[in-house]
Amino acid sequence: MVVRQGQPFLAVDWGTTNRRVYRLENGVVVRTERDDRGVTAVSDFAGEAVAIRERFGDLPMLLAGMVGSNIGWQTAPYVPAPAGIAELAANLLRIDERTAIVPGVSTLANGRPDVMRGEEVQLLGAVAAGLVPPDALLAQPGTHCKWAEMQGGRVAGFTTAMTGELFALLRGHGLLAAQLHGEVTANAAFRDGVEEGKRRDLAASLFGIRAAKMLGTRDDADAAAFASGLLIGSDVAARLAESLHAEIFILSGPELGNLYIAAIETNGRAARLIDSHAAFVAGILAIGNACS
Amino acid sequence: MVVRQGQPFLAVDWGTTNRRVYRLENGVVVRTERDDRGVTAVSDFAGEAVAIRERFGDLPMLLAGMVGSNIGWQTAPYVPAPAGIAELAANLLRIDERTAIVPGVSTLANGRPDVMRGEEVQLLGAVAAGLVPPDALLAQPGTHCKWAEMQGGRVAGFTTAMTGELFALLRGHGLLAAQLHGEVTANAAFRDGVEEGKRRDLAASLFGIRAAKMLGTRDDADAAAFASGLLIGSDVAARLAESLHAEIFILSGPELGNLYIAAIETNGRAARLIDSHAAFVAGILAIGNACS
Repeated sequence: MVVRQGQPFLAVDWGTTNRRVYRLENGVVVRTERDDRGVTAVSDFAGEAVAIRERFGDLPMLLAGMVGSNIGWQTAPYVPAPAGIAELAANLLRIDERTAIVPGVSTLANGRPDVMRGEEVQLLGAVAAGLVPPDALLAQPGTHCKWAEMQGGRVAGFTTAMTGELFALLRGHGLLAAQLHGEVTANAAFRDGVEEGKRRDLAASLFGIRAAKMLGTRDDADAAAFASGLLIGSDVAARLAESLHAEIFILSGPELGNLYIAAIETNGRAARLIDSHAAFVAGILAIGNACS
Repeated sequence: MVVRQGQPFLAVDWGTTNRRVYRLENGVVVRTERDDRGVTAVSDFAGEAVAIRERFGDLPMLLAGMVGSNIGWQTAPYVPAPAGIAELAANLLRIDERTAIVPGVSTLANGRPDVMRGEEVQLLGAVAAGLVPPDALLAQPGTHCKWAEMQGGRVAGFTTAMTGELFALLRGHGLLAAQLHGEVTANAAFRDGVEEGKRRDLAASLFGIRAAKMLGTRDDADAAAFASGLLIGSDVAARLAESLHAEIFILSGPELGNLYIAAIETNGRAARLIDSHAAFVAGILAIGNACS
């Protein structure tokens, strides 16, 4: 028992570069703050926990995210998928009698290992809050885009794609870097990139960006949007090939989320944005209830 | 007429970072030298040509490669594929009455623009020398791997994949960089990567390298070989899906060439190394004959 049934507690969504603290009472957020004290900015985690309690109240605390990794406070386990609220609550890493870290989730399905840490709370919370059906495909776009197949409200399987990181690498270094600093929106060039992404031939499609410049077949101001469409489109095409859901749910802010929606629609499916903060809160409340 | 039938001439394979000069007499190389005076190291190309003639003889000169690009001496055209010796010889860029640059080749097939500059001499020379059949799939591995479908001894179509560049980007920067400095050979881990590459899902397969480390499912010393297998394997799988040839010819030195052979064999086809220098010489001799 970390959290006591019906009693207030603190929840910390503690990622690599950012952290958000919530005080939860009677199932609702009564106070929240976001700062840049991600795990890479912190060395004294116990001291940080004391400071959080000084500001938010001397309460039980559930932590999730990279705080449970080998660059965090202590290394929490990975629970193998399929995993739901019950499996996470049963495998908390107890720091002390009123402080615990939520485990991550792992999979070895299809011979490809994969891990998540922090995203599982949002995914399970999205179902717990009724924001998505218990059987659904959910996407969490970002540097490393997570795609989770939910079955019966549990994380049945998932895939992480380095989509955002590849775009950053290409924009920062190498042959295409000078071409990739234009605006990225869900415009015609982006959708052309999504179409090219359906070919699932990334290394060749990327060189096509260079060749289009040499041959003058595309306005080079559109190269960044095309490249983004290509990378997101490759990711979307691979995931939709493995999932039959007619509508996909995107846990993301609108900027990146709308690019994924456009890519999914270009692939003939529907997509909808879901409030990822509400999902996190519902998930950590459900874990709090399950372990109290 | 740049070269005179049966007369000696000089050939320069002038790339971005390296240059090789040949003196050709009666169809054979009588002298050759390689140096690091690639186009990015040179500003006075006319002066370089004078210096080459001082060392190799005051003869007609055919140049090929990036010397004909917008970072080279003058910009030679791209001849659209299908292109053979005759089309290249008919579209030389004349610098003066005894100095000319071989054009590149372009394609817009399948909606994906592509260009080459320099590789076409090797490709056509491989056929001219009888090193490969006139209908064949040829690969030129490297930073930007060229794959050419030869038909009737001409470059019918081709694809460039940024395979080597992606490996360098991933090894130099980002999440996987620290894992990718191990030895790369055509070992079991490389072949596992080739198998994973068949999924044509690069951004997700790459994250699997990180996850394998976190879950301890692969010796991290094998990560570089696996990553190389994944990248080369994705490239090979995409190309073999578009070509039915039972045997593929690799214009490359043995180190990189043997990785491509292993990847092609893992995909159920045969592959063989071809001497790329001999191919270049045969190609430039054929162009010299055709324009004399």
